Amino acid sequence: MDMKLMPIGVINSQYLTKNDAPRQGRYSTETSTITVFNEFLDGLDGLDANEYLIILYWQDRAERDKLKVIPHGKTEKMGIFSTRAPVRPNPIGFCLVEVVNMNGNKIIVKWLDALDGSPLLDIKPFWKCDLPDIQ
Amino acid sequence: MDMKLMPIGVINSQYLTKNDAPRQGRYSTETSTITVFNEFLDGLDGLDANEYLIILYWQDRAERDKLKVIPHGKTEKMGIFSTRAPVRPNPIGFCLVEVVNMNGNKIIVKWLDALDGSPLLDIKPFWKCDLPDIQ
Repeated sequence: MDMKLMPIGVINSQYLTKNDAPRQGRYSTETSTITVFNEFLDGLDGLDANEYLIILYWQDRAERDKLKVIPHGKTEKMGIFSTRAPVRPNPIGFCLVEVVNMNGNKIIVKWLDALDGSPLLDIKPFWKCDLPDIQ
Repeated sequence: MDMKLMPIGVINSQYLTKNDAPRQGRYSTETSTITVFNEFLDGLDGLDANEYLIILYWQDRAERDKLKVIPHGKTEKMGIFSTRAPVRPNPIGFCLVEVVNMNGNKIIVKWLDALDGSPLLDIKPFWKCDLPDIQ
């Protein structure tokens, strides 16, 4: 099966290396700029109704061939699926972000932890009703 | 840039076609079975501490060449990035799921909306602290 991704845009941030990136974007006040490529602009129709978005991006500088890592602040190795480390077989980054501003193909957001230049893969609306029982 | 995904497992569910699938898995009591391929088993170490997981999977039966769709229950087209429709340039499905049982390489979960046979791409822990301000 062909599971090849295409970049739909690019993320620009203050994070140039993995040492710059916050352990969780949620706790940073930095903003990042998402630029959606013009050929995908029609897909943004109606997006401005959303205060929060799910962003999927490609962690292009992450290793893909490890199954255990020592997470930040821990001393023992853990299976990568029980961590949010970028290291994983399919390095798809997930962030819930807050929208600061949306103008044409540019979306400025908070809470994103992507390194500068990361390829954008997908944008999905986040609904508070996703999580009714665990709030 | 090569952004090629590899299946790390497979999802088995009661949903054989898109008409069977729930509009939101969250509102279904059906369970699905996630089978992680043996070569990735080391990555599951420590996962059983998690009650909720983020599942990313490949929506292998979705069209990739549309930018607008009429969502379920609506009458007007919307940009696909403002919907959760499987139709999108990179058809990566996202579900927050509740773990029912975990045994070896089999994880039984609720709230997953994947069609039977969908390739598994990633498993990440979900943390309630992801969402402090919007609960």
